[in-house]
Amino acid sequence: MTHLLDGDIAVVTAGVDLLAAAAEAQAADVTRVDWQPPMAGTGPDLVTVLGDPRRREANAEALRQVSGVRAMLVDVLPARDALGLDERSVLHAGPPIAWERASGPLRGALLGAAAFEGVVEDPEDAAALYASGAISLDPCHHHGAVGPMAGVVCASMWMWVIEDPQSGRRTYCSLNEGLGKVLRYGAYSAQVLDRLRWMSAVLGPALQAAVRAHGPIDVTAILAQMVQMGDEAHNRNRAGTLMLLRDLAPALVSSGLPPADLAEVFAFVGGNDHFFLNLAMPACKLALDAARGIPGSTMVVAMCRNGTDFGVQVAGTGDEWFTGPALVPEGLYLGDYGPEDANPDIGDSAITETCGLGGFAMAAAPAIVRFVGGTVGDALANTRRMYEITLGEHPAFAVPVLDFRGTPLGIDVTKVVRTGVLPQINTGMAGKVAGTGQVGAGLVTPPADIFPKALRALAERV
Amino acid sequence: MTHLLDGDIAVVTAGVDLLAAAAEAQAADVTRVDWQPPMAGTGPDLVTVLGDPRRREANAEALRQVSGVRAMLVDVLPARDALGLDERSVLHAGPPIAWERASGPLRGALLGAAAFEGVVEDPEDAAALYASGAISLDPCHHHGAVGPMAGVVCASMWMWVIEDPQSGRRTYCSLNEGLGKVLRYGAYSAQVLDRLRWMSAVLGPALQAAVRAHGPIDVTAILAQMVQMGDEAHNRNRAGTLMLLRDLAPALVSSGLPPADLAEVFAFVGGNDHFFLNLAMPACKLALDAARGIPGSTMVVAMCRNGTDFGVQVAGTGDEWFTGPALVPEGLYLGDYGPEDANPDIGDSAITETCGLGGFAMAAAPAIVRFVGGTVGDALANTRRMYEITLGEHPAFAVPVLDFRGTPLGIDVTKVVRTGVLPQINTGMAGKVAGTGQVGAGLVTPPADIFPKALRALAERV
Repeated sequence: MTHLLDGDIAVVTAGVDLLAAAAEAQAADVTRVDWQPPMAGTGPDLVTVLGDPRRREANAEALRQVSGVRAMLVDVLPARDALGLDERSVLHAGPPIAWERASGPLRGALLGAAAFEGVVEDPEDAAALYASGAISLDPCHHHGAVGPMAGVVCASMWMWVIEDPQSGRRTYCSLNEGLGKVLRYGAYSAQVLDRLRWMSAVLGPALQAAVRAHGPIDVTAILAQMVQMGDEAHNRNRAGTLMLLRDLAPALVSSGLPPADLAEVFAFVGGNDHFFLNLAMPACKLALDAARGIPGSTMVVAMCRNGTDFGVQVAGTGDEWFTGPALVPEGLYLGDYGPEDANPDIGDSAITETCGLGGFAMAAAPAIVRFVGGTVGDALANTRRMYEITLGEHPAFAVPVLDFRGTPLGIDVTKVVRTGVLPQINTGMAGKVAGTGQVGAGLVTPPADIFPKALRALAERV
Repeated sequence: MTHLLDGDIAVVTAGVDLLAAAAEAQAADVTRVDWQPPMAGTGPDLVTVLGDPRRREANAEALRQVSGVRAMLVDVLPARDALGLDERSVLHAGPPIAWERASGPLRGALLGAAAFEGVVEDPEDAAALYASGAISLDPCHHHGAVGPMAGVVCASMWMWVIEDPQSGRRTYCSLNEGLGKVLRYGAYSAQVLDRLRWMSAVLGPALQAAVRAHGPIDVTAILAQMVQMGDEAHNRNRAGTLMLLRDLAPALVSSGLPPADLAEVFAFVGGNDHFFLNLAMPACKLALDAARGIPGSTMVVAMCRNGTDFGVQVAGTGDEWFTGPALVPEGLYLGDYGPEDANPDIGDSAITETCGLGGFAMAAAPAIVRFVGGTVGDALANTRRMYEITLGEHPAFAVPVLDFRGTPLGIDVTKVVRTGVLPQINTGMAGKVAGTGQVGAGLVTPPADIFPKALRALAERV
């Protein structure tokens, strides 16, 4: 005979609440375990992928590769030279998309880019060129580049050049324009284009001269410092921007540029707390690209959005995209803007979360809740929750308030599918009408269904 | 008949552990309340001061005054012009002290200052001049100034000039030399004096030109930002230094200085994460001085050390000093240095703690434990404990990880005496032998006995 029911009953429940509620109604002591079943219909694929004998070592190797990359800023070049673009080839954020499915902010940025390149005089005239394919569209990610928000890159824009000294691999990102009415948020007024022209005429060459005179700058080391200084490198890049300015300042003032140009450069960079984002992003891509094409690895190597679709790529599935509809972020709005003004999630900047920064590092940057919404407790909880779906911790990104624990690194498709916990992204919000610009900032996740798709592709390769 | 002993006994104890231990030995459930009696012999004075009908409003007024000051950087001037010093009048940190009682690092700095001023060629020759009074000594605090570590100020040093625009009051501090072998840590080698000469010849005039061209810079606003960026403004001033550099950069490059000098200035300031300390300190003094001379207020308005004595001044007791022997900090040592190399606590920099920064704001700067020792938990606990002995919270210094609670502000002599909780200071450590320089950084408190002395003086004025 069992004595199970002799003493007080202690019940541990997981999953649906029916049993727990019933036991509690009978005055039993109930402990709920936070568990839910894997995403619907993923059982067989999970069994296949979790049983893949290559998986454990492949993921360990992927993590080693990503952790081992030291991203060095080595040059600043026009996209024409860095990426071989001409004025009829334009890049954009996210997975591939054609003009007819492009959202407002992406269309706005594309129209502005065509005018900036001089292909059209009136930006509106460019719509037909994009629709007909007379100007080609391609994702930044297909060219070793990343772009925040619309992520539009055209030939005359200047690009940061980031290099992995061990492999010689390079990644690229444009220069950050600032907040508000800017091209990457879909604005394309004369003021926006004038700023881009100044950036190409003055800022790019000045930064090129400074970087070349200074020599390579260790972006990974700056990122590590940022995490000690309240930045999470997606929507807080204050300390990073300041450290970049500090590092480049002596070379800038020795560059022979006219003092008036120098003063403008210092004021422009110093006046934009997000300037460093465009260095954080290609540094993250450089690290994650080191894990591309590792057979059997279930680690996500890219998350990005084009304003219509959210796409991920996985180490074990080559360059295949798994996409679903981008969600609309929730957060704080500028001025009179509200939820009805916001475009769905857009930009390559979720590469920061993919690399253990951004939403994954919010515990290191609690002040960010004043920008993206939520409480300080949420910020800490977001980072803690991401450990549930990641393969390890970033060795260089130590969170002081978590006793210097590394940020959660390496999103594991199987863990996302098993737990239903989705990667937490913090992001800027673009107005959904082309030409609007930024309307706010907030929190968002990928659409859940892309992870079962990625899992299926992994299962097919076992 | 009482039923006190019918059920299980629950015991709450406070003070000495005798009762708690005895009750526990009898299997009772004991809760210890963290309480201890007031400091020995302070009972009558506490009764007098706590009963002072002016106290509550006086302290509220003191807190209002301190919170209301906005510290603006308005100029950079040689101490000769700012403070009226000549080459035979030298200032030092802490309460008044004569040469014969001065510790090694203060003596080292004084010897170096005399050589820097050209009063002697060999620094050692200055000892007799200080001993005889041929060179006069006076505390920085008596001249509206503050100085970190030895805090030695002489006529040719350039000073930050901080102003309260409402009252026109000004405070002053020298320019920070960096870490290691520097005058303020008691080093006075040729290299130290050469650096000081460059600072007077190039750095001071460059900063003067930049500040004058830029116009007033809001130091209080920078301090508020720093607390969002992992600085506590005593031993972490990284973000502050970077923000200062950012703010001054456009004016610096437009100043007409030769590019080589400009590059040196940018490299020097950017290479010294502690550069902003010398702005944080006079900003704190400016705020606290607003509460001097409020009859009945028990708030501390200055804490400082000369390397031999620790001194405090209190709002309700005018400019009277209450002093006791400075303690030796505990912390982390540079290179091969150890506890036997450390001088007792030295410097005016505890003005930051007095104003709710430094050790009081460590919860905002958990990464500091890598510099001063201890754990992240200690850093959080230090800030929390300081709320027990302070009158309020700083409205501008919001700690993100404490849900944006203001830092503990306004040390209350009566609370220190009643609780025995001493103000927590984090600090650099100077070598006790003159000429050594910095040997480490750590944590320290004032000697406990100065607070009963201050309380006695408050009681005598009731």
